[in-house]
Amino acid sequence: MRQYPRSLNKLINELSKLPGIGDKTAQRLAFHILSLTDREAGELADSIVDAKKNLRYCSVCGNLTDREKCLICSDESRDQTTICVVETPQDVVAMERIREYKGLYHVLHGAISPAEGIGPNDINLKSLITRLQGDSDVQEIIIATNPNIEGEATAMYISRLLKPAGIKVTRIAHGIPVGGDLEYADEVTLLKAVEGRREI
Amino acid sequence: MRQYPRSLNKLINELSKLPGIGDKTAQRLAFHILSLTDREAGELADSIVDAKKNLRYCSVCGNLTDREKCLICSDESRDQTTICVVETPQDVVAMERIREYKGLYHVLHGAISPAEGIGPNDINLKSLITRLQGDSDVQEIIIATNPNIEGEATAMYISRLLKPAGIKVTRIAHGIPVGGDLEYADEVTLLKAVEGRREI
Repeated sequence: MRQYPRSLNKLINELSKLPGIGDKTAQRLAFHILSLTDREAGELADSIVDAKKNLRYCSVCGNLTDREKCLICSDESRDQTTICVVETPQDVVAMERIREYKGLYHVLHGAISPAEGIGPNDINLKSLITRLQGDSDVQEIIIATNPNIEGEATAMYISRLLKPAGIKVTRIAHGIPVGGDLEYADEVTLLKAVEGRREI
Repeated sequence: MRQYPRSLNKLINELSKLPGIGDKTAQRLAFHILSLTDREAGELADSIVDAKKNLRYCSVCGNLTDREKCLICSDESRDQTTICVVETPQDVVAMERIREYKGLYHVLHGAISPAEGIGPNDINLKSLITRLQGDSDVQEIIIATNPNIEGEATAMYISRLLKPAGIKVTRIAHGIPVGGDLEYADEVTLLKAVEGRREI
């Protein structure tokens, strides 16, 4: 049993529930929080409550937003003919970071995983179909799910679902990362890199 | 610039101010917080505010407490003749963990460090003197400051200050940690271990 006063124990307890934060780190963070001014600590606490209160999922694409329709969906200057399908809002940020993709997104909030009992109806997929039915502008769906079993299964499922409707479905390339070392690449990645080779 | 909504950016920002939490970890924590129920997130936020509001320093020993006098100082069954001087409230917890020490504590909230301009008046030392003047029961002061330059300087200072008053001042032993390997011990620790040798 720790010998701290009750409210400090409670704070350490709450912090240690966070992912990757063990008991020792939680103690260090708690003592740091105690060393903050009341205003600083208040801002940290408020930011937690505010984020929970204000954030929701975009009614169109499922991305995180603090309004009804997210900034990307609301931006009419973006290419309305392409939708990039990703697993999480973090992936949207990763895609945006390349500053090259100007189309729209669709966030699945997961991937199909028969092993974990997650089927097509458990992810944000139905709204993609609705979106395509209502919006005839879309010509290409780029599937950027993760290159693992679940991501590949999801990509395959979406591709089979949309191909009959005459929509072009593409998958982002997998291969050796730029700056990576061929010698240390695993066989599956190397195989994907060879399969995806292009004429230069 | 991150592409997250404003309140998420704010949360990530606040989290990344915590020690040892970089931008990536802050994002991971923020997304975890978003996945909590409103109640869970509320509890985390409340625990921060409550800890800041309720915790203060014990008027006697300087340890963290949520009342005027801490649990240890209030406990009359503890040995009132011994005071263990430590640098931080965390050190009190470390000492309590050995379940052997039954005396009182005095928390300095730091150590004397001429290099950083921290003198005897900048740490919680004056109240120790006041305590000894008012309370004639104390027979021994165990100095358990850290075994580094600042901790040693502080130990030396306190020892010189109290010796004339006829109070026994002791220092915890430094040596090879139990389970430690002689081969990998640094020279200073090994020297301390040899100096502190005892007949068996």
